[in-house]
Amino acid sequence: MGQTYALLLHGGAGVLAARSYDPERMHMRELAEAGKAMLESGKTALDVVTEIVRRLEASGLYVAGKGASPNQAGRYELDAAIMDGATQKAGAVAALTGFVSPVHAARAVMEKTRHVMLAGRGAERFAGLQELERVESVNDYYTPAAAPDTRDIATGTVGCVALDVSGRIAAATSTGGTLNKLEGRVGDSPILGAGCWADGHVAVSCTGQGEFFLRKATAKDVSARMAYGGQGLAEAAQGAIADIGTMGGEGGLIAVDARGNLAQPFNSPGMKRAAVYPDGRITVEVD
Amino acid sequence: MGQTYALLLHGGAGVLAARSYDPERMHMRELAEAGKAMLESGKTALDVVTEIVRRLEASGLYVAGKGASPNQAGRYELDAAIMDGATQKAGAVAALTGFVSPVHAARAVMEKTRHVMLAGRGAERFAGLQELERVESVNDYYTPAAAPDTRDIATGTVGCVALDVSGRIAAATSTGGTLNKLEGRVGDSPILGAGCWADGHVAVSCTGQGEFFLRKATAKDVSARMAYGGQGLAEAAQGAIADIGTMGGEGGLIAVDARGNLAQPFNSPGMKRAAVYPDGRITVEVD
Repeated sequence: MGQTYALLLHGGAGVLAARSYDPERMHMRELAEAGKAMLESGKTALDVVTEIVRRLEASGLYVAGKGASPNQAGRYELDAAIMDGATQKAGAVAALTGFVSPVHAARAVMEKTRHVMLAGRGAERFAGLQELERVESVNDYYTPAAAPDTRDIATGTVGCVALDVSGRIAAATSTGGTLNKLEGRVGDSPILGAGCWADGHVAVSCTGQGEFFLRKATAKDVSARMAYGGQGLAEAAQGAIADIGTMGGEGGLIAVDARGNLAQPFNSPGMKRAAVYPDGRITVEVD
Repeated sequence: MGQTYALLLHGGAGVLAARSYDPERMHMRELAEAGKAMLESGKTALDVVTEIVRRLEASGLYVAGKGASPNQAGRYELDAAIMDGATQKAGAVAALTGFVSPVHAARAVMEKTRHVMLAGRGAERFAGLQELERVESVNDYYTPAAAPDTRDIATGTVGCVALDVSGRIAAATSTGGTLNKLEGRVGDSPILGAGCWADGHVAVSCTGQGEFFLRKATAKDVSARMAYGGQGLAEAAQGAIADIGTMGGEGGLIAVDARGNLAQPFNSPGMKRAAVYPDGRITVEVD
């Protein structure tokens, strides 16, 4: 490919008609500009998706990281995954408590262990040993982005996919889960093949009602439609989301292929997202 | 289809040349006979895979359930998943401690919650509320099947796939994980699309070095090769395992399609398994 780059980021499926989302729009544009600059400077797709998702987590504007929702036990359990298309190396954490950046913990699992996924106490212990930044005070840190009475927005998640100038693609997804989720509930976000995926064909990050994405292995499904069905990115991405709809599920995904094609289908009422196209153009949309 | 049934079960990839595996062979034959009888009596594929995996867990002969290995923290954290092909409903538990049958916990997640997967403390709390059978004394109950110096056998896992006489297929997988695994490590077994999968095409249960199966979403890969690539079961199953080998991974899988075709490819030194063919024939093999 050479010198082509592209990026998509999302701040979760589901928007409310009554809100403007100006803060999210402004923030997503800022991140898209930052991602574009990183890609132009030659940063790897893996580093770019890590950094963009870290900033999405840190913003408190989405249901991930600082904006996460407490579960029914009142605890903040967070999930994240990251995958490198070039090597298909991957890392994930599920039901992680006590750390600022779940995507950094996922990246550390990928790079510092022979495992792919760590959950619960073990994930927490590992993150501690890696000296990742801890949440000092749970009550002070978290500012749940999901209003208690808005079920739709509470399915929010953040993610990023990117193609770098060396032709490598990568994906990362992070979530604070659904509001009032059962303690220990793991959705699609940290599940490779469901909410996050990258291989030689495509990098995908999903958002929405995670249980449906788990039951369809949606992120891998996009790749499989391309690899085995000869579908292009747009058809594959749209087909995977249509399958979610057939089951009665709502959500969306962002995807980039190795040529810099972008897809961002959703069947939910809106999806907060921003794109950096190969020609440098940036778009920010919520519906 | 009508009246056709078929079943495969496995007791994990990896066998040692120095051992006879007579107890495992005898036990797997017994379970194959039991599975055959259940299918002939009209039991659903979902019920059959649940019961066969429960018995595999309870036997102590494999690295799952009673035969699980302690992790580096000395704790027994178990994983399981179950999926119904007809509805694509699914349940899974990860890093569950304190319960006799992880597959029963996975089935309860599928049937009693609106979630698909529960991990860690939340999984434990949920299983307790369901009044599932607890491990009374950890030290008395577990009899690790993996010898401390045998790395290969320590990748053991159990699983079952079945086609029932109504044409429904289902899959279940359960594991005690790799010996000396990092606390909280989750392999492919409880991950839908990686170590367990069932849909309208095929039901799959994997075993082996789980990290490779996670990085390939192997179980879903088998289905995708059939759904999008037009491959038959044998080709799809063999291709998915070949991909694991290309990455340097070892393992195998069992799979049944909606016509009663069976596949049991592996690239590991052996895989403990038994089959019930549509004509009623039973085979038991370890290499």
